[in-house]
Amino acid sequence: MYTIGLDLGGTFIKGGLVDDGGKIVAKSKIPTRIQAGPEAVAADMAAQALALIADAGVKKEDVRGIGIGSPGAIDSENGIVNYANNLTGWIDVPLAAYINAKTGLGVKVSNDANVAALGETMFGAGKGYENAVMITLGTGVGGGVICNGRLYEGNESKGAELGHMVVKAGGARCNCGRRGCLEAYASATALIRETKKAMKKHPESAMWKFSPDIDEVDGRTSFECAKAGDAAAAKVVDDYLYYLAEGLLNYCNIFRPQVIILGGGVCAQGDYLIGRLDDIMSRAHYGYRGAPAVKLVIATLGNDAGLIGAASLIMGSAGAL
Amino acid sequence: MYTIGLDLGGTFIKGGLVDDGGKIVAKSKIPTRIQAGPEAVAADMAAQALALIADAGVKKEDVRGIGIGSPGAIDSENGIVNYANNLTGWIDVPLAAYINAKTGLGVKVSNDANVAALGETMFGAGKGYENAVMITLGTGVGGGVICNGRLYEGNESKGAELGHMVVKAGGARCNCGRRGCLEAYASATALIRETKKAMKKHPESAMWKFSPDIDEVDGRTSFECAKAGDAAAAKVVDDYLYYLAEGLLNYCNIFRPQVIILGGGVCAQGDYLIGRLDDIMSRAHYGYRGAPAVKLVIATLGNDAGLIGAASLIMGSAGAL
Repeated sequence: MYTIGLDLGGTFIKGGLVDDGGKIVAKSKIPTRIQAGPEAVAADMAAQALALIADAGVKKEDVRGIGIGSPGAIDSENGIVNYANNLTGWIDVPLAAYINAKTGLGVKVSNDANVAALGETMFGAGKGYENAVMITLGTGVGGGVICNGRLYEGNESKGAELGHMVVKAGGARCNCGRRGCLEAYASATALIRETKKAMKKHPESAMWKFSPDIDEVDGRTSFECAKAGDAAAAKVVDDYLYYLAEGLLNYCNIFRPQVIILGGGVCAQGDYLIGRLDDIMSRAHYGYRGAPAVKLVIATLGNDAGLIGAASLIMGSAGAL
Repeated sequence: MYTIGLDLGGTFIKGGLVDDGGKIVAKSKIPTRIQAGPEAVAADMAAQALALIADAGVKKEDVRGIGIGSPGAIDSENGIVNYANNLTGWIDVPLAAYINAKTGLGVKVSNDANVAALGETMFGAGKGYENAVMITLGTGVGGGVICNGRLYEGNESKGAELGHMVVKAGGARCNCGRRGCLEAYASATALIRETKKAMKKHPESAMWKFSPDIDEVDGRTSFECAKAGDAAAAKVVDDYLYYLAEGLLNYCNIFRPQVIILGGGVCAQGDYLIGRLDDIMSRAHYGYRGAPAVKLVIATLGNDAGLIGAASLIMGSAGAL
C-alpha cells in the first residue's frame, strides 16, 4: 500500500507517494498560489496527489489516503488550517474537506513541525522509539512530541510549542511577546544575532575573515571560527550551547524521552554539535539514581521529513505510530 | 467492582477500598516500618489490603487489584521502586511482586505525583479532560501529565519531573544541582525562604505581627499579609506568582492541556491564587490566533488524591483513563 504526503509551504508544495516502509517512490513540487486563495491551492494539491498516483501507475485503491503537513495552527481533528502566518489570508480553511471532495481519499492535516517529528520517529533518527522529542533549530525553534507511541498535539492540536518555553525569565524578547523563550536563544536567528554582536565588539575576530560582509553572517560563522580557535566565536558558541542545553535538559526532565532528535539548519554542525551538547548535558542531567540518559541524535530525513511525516499521519491509525 | 489504593509515605501507609466511581468505601492507616526493611513493609501493605477487603465484607473476586503510589523513582512497568529518598535504603525493591505473592492480586506501582495527577484527572478537578497537567506546590514542585487520555511517564517511568524545568538560567540553586528550576522559585520552600528574607529586610512589615517567630513562617504568611495591604509581603507574593506563572505558561505552550490542576499546600490560597494567576497569564498566553485558553483549577481530592489515584492505576487498563 501507498500513502500521499504533501508538505505545504508558503512558496512550494512538495508531494510524494510513500510506501509502507517510509520510502518515497515518486515526488513532485508545485508553486503555492497564495494569491489565488485557499480553495484554489487546495484544488492544486488535490490535482498534485492524483497526478502522483496516476504517474506512478498505482491503483487508487492501493492508496491509503493523503497526509498533509501545514504551517501554522491546525485543528487536526477536523482537518482545518485555523491560521498560518506563512499562508496569507488563511483563516479556518477546511483543507481536508476541500481535498477529500476533489479526490475521494481520506485526508489528515497536522502542523508541519509535528509531522516532521512523527516522520523522524517512524522512519528516521527516532525509529524504534515510543517516546521522542524533536526540536528544530531554524528561523524559529519548533518541535513535536511522540508520547507513548502517539503524536501528542494537545487541546485543539495547539500543543508542542517547544520553542516557547521561557528558560530565562526576563531575558531576551521573543517574537511571541514573552521574554527569555528558548527560541530567543537557540534559534538560528538568535545565533546570527549574537554572532553579529560579537563581531561588532571584536574587530580582530577571525569571523570577519569568514564573513567579510556582516549581512552574510549565517549559522556557520561562529561555529566554524570557534573550531578554528577564534576566542570571540567560541564565546558565541558556548553561550548558544549553554541555553540550548538548558532547554534540552528541561525536556529531558519533563518527558524523559528515549531520544531527542535535533533538526534544522544548525544541525549541519552534526557530530560536533552532539558532542558538545552531550558533554554539557552529561554534567547536568537531573541527577537521581538511575534516571536513564536521553540519546541525542541529528534528524536523518532532511528535506523529506515533511513529506514522509505527512504520509505517516495516515499510515499509523489516527496519527499513531 | 472495587480496587485497593495504597498511598505509601515515609511515615504512614494510607489504604482505601475504592469503588468504580472513585468513592472510598473503606479506609485504613498504618505506620511505615522503614527500619524493618522493604519486605516487611510490603508484607504490612499486603495485610492492610486484605484487611480492607475482609472488613468491608467484599468478595476478593470483586476486587480488580492493588494500585500503589510511592515516592521516588519507580519503574512502573515492572512494579519496582528504584530509589526513594523518603524510604531509606530502598534500592530496586520489587514491591509489586512482593505484594502480589502475598495477596494473589494484580499490583501496579507508580510515582506518587503521577498517581495524584491520574486520580485528580479521573475523579477530581480534571474530570472529563483528556489532556491535563497537575503541578503540586509543596516542599518541592512535582507533577504529573495526562496525554491523550493516558498517564505519561516517559522512559523507565522517569518523566514528568515538572519542577525541574529551568525558568531562569543561572538563577537560584535547586536541590537537583541545576540553577533556576521552577522548584527553586515556586515551591512552598522557596516562598518561605523569600518571606524570611523580606522580613529581615523590612522590620516594619506586618509579617512580623503575623509570624512573630521567624522560624514559624509558613506559606500563608506572605499571602495573608499581602491581602491585608502589607507592601513587603505583596512584593514577595508578586515575585512568587511571576515565576509560577512563567512555569505554568511554559506548560501551556508545551502541552496546551485542557486544564492545569494545582495541588499542594500553597493552594490553600484557592480562588485568590487562581484569580491572580489567571490575570497574569491572560496577558501572556502564547498569542497566536485561536490558541485555546487553559483552565486553571485547584485540586479537589485533597489528601485522598494519593489513594484514589493509586486505585486509578488499576481501574483504567494499563494506567489509561
